[in-house]
Amino acid sequence: MAGIEDLHLPCGGKGTCGRCLVEIVSGHAEQTASGRLHKALAGQNLVMSCQTKVCDDITVRLRQARESAMKVVGDSHFLISEDLLPDRNSLSALYRAEKLTVPEASIEEHYSDWTRLVRVLTGSKDSISVSTDVWVLRSLADNLREQGGKVTVLVQEEDSGLRVCEVRPGHVDIHAYGLAIDIGTTTVAVQLVDMLDGKILGSRTSYNAQLRRGADVISRIDYARNKQRLLELRGLILETLNELIEEVCGAVSVFREDVRAAFVAGNTTMIHLLLALPPRFIREAPYVPTVNAVPGLPAGEVGLIINPQAMVVCAPGVGSYVGGDITSGLLCTELPVNHDEVFLYLDIGTNGEIVLGNADWMVACACSAGPAFEGSGIKCGMRATGGAIEYIEITDDARYVNYDVIGGGKPVGICGSGLICLLGEMLMRGIVDQSGRLNMDLNTPRMVKIDNQNAFVIDWDLNGVPELVITEPDIENLIRTKAAIYAACSLIMQNVGLDWSMISRVFIAGGFGRYVQVEDAVQIGLLPDLPYEKFTYIGNSALTGAYIALISQEHRNELAGIAAKMTYIDLSSDPHYMDAYLGAMFLPHTDMTQFPSVASRLAAAKSAGN
Amino acid sequence: MAGIEDLHLPCGGKGTCGRCLVEIVSGHAEQTASGRLHKALAGQNLVMSCQTKVCDDITVRLRQARESAMKVVGDSHFLISEDLLPDRNSLSALYRAEKLTVPEASIEEHYSDWTRLVRVLTGSKDSISVSTDVWVLRSLADNLREQGGKVTVLVQEEDSGLRVCEVRPGHVDIHAYGLAIDIGTTTVAVQLVDMLDGKILGSRTSYNAQLRRGADVISRIDYARNKQRLLELRGLILETLNELIEEVCGAVSVFREDVRAAFVAGNTTMIHLLLALPPRFIREAPYVPTVNAVPGLPAGEVGLIINPQAMVVCAPGVGSYVGGDITSGLLCTELPVNHDEVFLYLDIGTNGEIVLGNADWMVACACSAGPAFEGSGIKCGMRATGGAIEYIEITDDARYVNYDVIGGGKPVGICGSGLICLLGEMLMRGIVDQSGRLNMDLNTPRMVKIDNQNAFVIDWDLNGVPELVITEPDIENLIRTKAAIYAACSLIMQNVGLDWSMISRVFIAGGFGRYVQVEDAVQIGLLPDLPYEKFTYIGNSALTGAYIALISQEHRNELAGIAAKMTYIDLSSDPHYMDAYLGAMFLPHTDMTQFPSVASRLAAAKSAGN
Repeated sequence: MAGIEDLHLPCGGKGTCGRCLVEIVSGHAEQTASGRLHKALAGQNLVMSCQTKVCDDITVRLRQARESAMKVVGDSHFLISEDLLPDRNSLSALYRAEKLTVPEASIEEHYSDWTRLVRVLTGSKDSISVSTDVWVLRSLADNLREQGGKVTVLVQEEDSGLRVCEVRPGHVDIHAYGLAIDIGTTTVAVQLVDMLDGKILGSRTSYNAQLRRGADVISRIDYARNKQRLLELRGLILETLNELIEEVCGAVSVFREDVRAAFVAGNTTMIHLLLALPPRFIREAPYVPTVNAVPGLPAGEVGLIINPQAMVVCAPGVGSYVGGDITSGLLCTELPVNHDEVFLYLDIGTNGEIVLGNADWMVACACSAGPAFEGSGIKCGMRATGGAIEYIEITDDARYVNYDVIGGGKPVGICGSGLICLLGEMLMRGIVDQSGRLNMDLNTPRMVKIDNQNAFVIDWDLNGVPELVITEPDIENLIRTKAAIYAACSLIMQNVGLDWSMISRVFIAGGFGRYVQVEDAVQIGLLPDLPYEKFTYIGNSALTGAYIALISQEHRNELAGIAAKMTYIDLSSDPHYMDAYLGAMFLPHTDMTQFPSVASRLAAAKSAGN
Repeated sequence: MAGIEDLHLPCGGKGTCGRCLVEIVSGHAEQTASGRLHKALAGQNLVMSCQTKVCDDITVRLRQARESAMKVVGDSHFLISEDLLPDRNSLSALYRAEKLTVPEASIEEHYSDWTRLVRVLTGSKDSISVSTDVWVLRSLADNLREQGGKVTVLVQEEDSGLRVCEVRPGHVDIHAYGLAIDIGTTTVAVQLVDMLDGKILGSRTSYNAQLRRGADVISRIDYARNKQRLLELRGLILETLNELIEEVCGAVSVFREDVRAAFVAGNTTMIHLLLALPPRFIREAPYVPTVNAVPGLPAGEVGLIINPQAMVVCAPGVGSYVGGDITSGLLCTELPVNHDEVFLYLDIGTNGEIVLGNADWMVACACSAGPAFEGSGIKCGMRATGGAIEYIEITDDARYVNYDVIGGGKPVGICGSGLICLLGEMLMRGIVDQSGRLNMDLNTPRMVKIDNQNAFVIDWDLNGVPELVITEPDIENLIRTKAAIYAACSLIMQNVGLDWSMISRVFIAGGFGRYVQVEDAVQIGLLPDLPYEKFTYIGNSALTGAYIALISQEHRNELAGIAAKMTYIDLSSDPHYMDAYLGAMFLPHTDMTQFPSVASRLAAAKSAGN
């Protein structure tokens, strides 16, 4: 396609999204039957590229704006609340740097260079097994002799003993960095960590470059149906990751060679695509992946441009639709230790995943939520990075809007937490009704029509043209997303035979932003109507979990236990799902008895307004 | 050097061997002071290339014949006496092929493809840990479904559990081969083994291509003094190994991809060169190598052209001059189990290595023997392959010679066992005296002068020109070699405070050929004068030991124990070595009281001759 690579094609080439529309300027092309467009469009010489066979040289004009603006890269704002993290002092560091002085050999004690080094390193304890790589050995003789036996050694703790990763002459500074990586269907996050002390040196997020080939896992799986396309998708995610790695390392002047470990959290499809495992059977009944717990691989083989020997470990998954992003996310929660406490864990991403459990059991299910809360598919939506509105207040008369912008300054768009806030406020102020329609009769200049769509204006540009708006289709998107999640929650509760009152804790994970207004999230029916103190928002928990697993072998072992304990429930075959979903397609719900506190607040607001 | 790569340069470029002489036809070149030749040669415009700086374009004429004939490759004849080998039935095979039928997944039992395979493989025993590679996973989904779950799986036993190396659709034949490799300073041997049943499918030997850059370990170490030359020597041994591997696999139509393991025995310098570890400090006091036990490495990293994932393991060494060839060689002996039995182990190669020990201790030493018994440096010498004379008888009148040729037919040269036999016979028939001089007065046409050297003719060509001969310099070479070995044996005995009568078993290892006539070996003073039944010739034991370690994890563990138990004694710093060596520079020895049986036999022969 003449180097045009960054089109956003949500359907993955199935002829349903119409995002690949082009206008044929000259030349001849044939359309498939399924590719026929509405007469009005066909009259304009428009065709869908994915459904069109090019018969000779043709010239086309793109209809979709190139999405360079999509790729906002900047310092991201993840919630890494210190109380979610393991106590760094209690960790036995996976790496340590040791300044040693290795004695010279003599005729009497002619131990090899390696043996002398190991004797000093272990204090001559034979019980400690020490391994190394041939690369270290190749320069060992010279390095040991360059400064009379003074060397600095980078040592890695392994289950089976110690591993010498590097030996440098002299007593010098030596570094070991690691990466915590979260590969989401829509957004990708990378965090750089100093492995010697566990400090986080920086984070970067970006959209997943695979978005060009499909918006959700199903369209990605369809796209990857042959080997070449599978490798193409693998190449795209590596492109995203390697760019983020370059940026996050560059910002703090870390050599990528010194990055010696990576821990990856991702859903099952994302991990299959990263490792070029064919994902096809994930979406064909009975929906099984090739593997849930993939073996650790050297970075060179995975394709990450860091130290080629760095071990890349992926969080273990549970099934096709409950992957390592969920198991690692659970590392950020304080899992209950007694039977009475039941927790609910919601990870709201392009797919929504829900885990319900207590000290003894866990069940998990997934639903296709859509990326609305990640800012995708929303006119002014964006990821939770600099420039995003993360909090909004609207006055009772709907005339004035206050907002907080991440990083301050002029807003560029609205992130997940801002959207939740906005929708809750609009509902309470009567700007939107419970079915999601905008009240265009309100006496405020903020109610406008844009491209024939009803919209509410958050901000205008300097010329008075609406710049930040939310439209009725945006609101419909948000309602669909929250309905899918709430429906899945209700259903898994029913399946297990619990009701809401039995839940002691609710953990909410997702890339919404720094803070989520629980009141607003309950108001719009995304979260159940429970006492607010039961909720904990834990942010991008997949990334935080990956960080915890990266720096702690103990927590890495815990992960395997979490994956083993969890049972997957397939909601797609549950006949009640559609009913539950349709019931939730309302703000907050068609059955208001499920949201008593919202009902009374809405009633109070209404009577105040009258 | 204009593509001329196969010159034989024993000194490794130090200006001492004169084998790189060239005649300058045109152009100008400067010689170093140490490179000055005798006036007679200098007058002929001859220079040593290694000591000459080329000043402009020059044309030279080579003086040394190109040594393509050196590289005799054919099916070799190693003694693999069945009683040296572990009982194959008692081994738990390292690899096995299993024909499995993996059930399809269902909505109720939606285990991943990998989990279903593992459950069938282990009979659902969770305690067995099973690992695999990402390559196996990449085709697993398709392979499992191609024939309704019928697959054939190649499984490797590992310390920590099982490893699935390959999965093929259907119930088919699947193979796993391995290589036992012996890298000698002069000769290299490779054996192809079926890892499923331990059968040896073929063997090949060749000269080490590094011979072009030095005849012994010292000159190789000197040559490898910079990184580029180290890599050159590494390239040369890989060239030799990969040619041998191609031949041995090709002969039995084995795909090199199916070769999944290799076990390498070699002296410490050879292993350093193979892995590109700088060998310099092996020959600088206090003579320590970089490492004695190198970590296992994938073949792709080592540079062997077999399955790139095949693990290449090197036998652990003990010191700079007692390497993995000795520890693996000891695997072929029945090591004593009580304190009274003391054994002596001799490995006679380019370096001679000697181990003395009992159930509790082992001491080892090394001496520079020279490659005479490997056929190198002897006019008609050759390796023990097809066409080599391995056994010789000479009539009392020295007029008739009978011999056996490996593989039958016309002889091409004489291998180690033939040379021992020949020298013993010549001594008993009075053809050579005890100082190694030929008796030119004998009335036989076999006593001739060739190139001004006294020689004994073994065979003539069809035109009556002497074709197979042994010269006085050849005999001197053989005496030097056997003297070095005998002197080292005597000295290590003295060091430990033992005398010959205390030795219960003597194991002799080396690439001499199929049989060694112990009587002849004692006659010439290579072996001590002990009752013949105490001697066991175990052939190329380094190779056989590598084979044993290749097929048996149990014996591989035993190897580590042998290496740990052994103490290295440095003879090069022993002031008595030169005396012992000079005393042994006689047939059999200057001190005939050490060889009473030979003395009486010589006396008997002399009186019969008179």
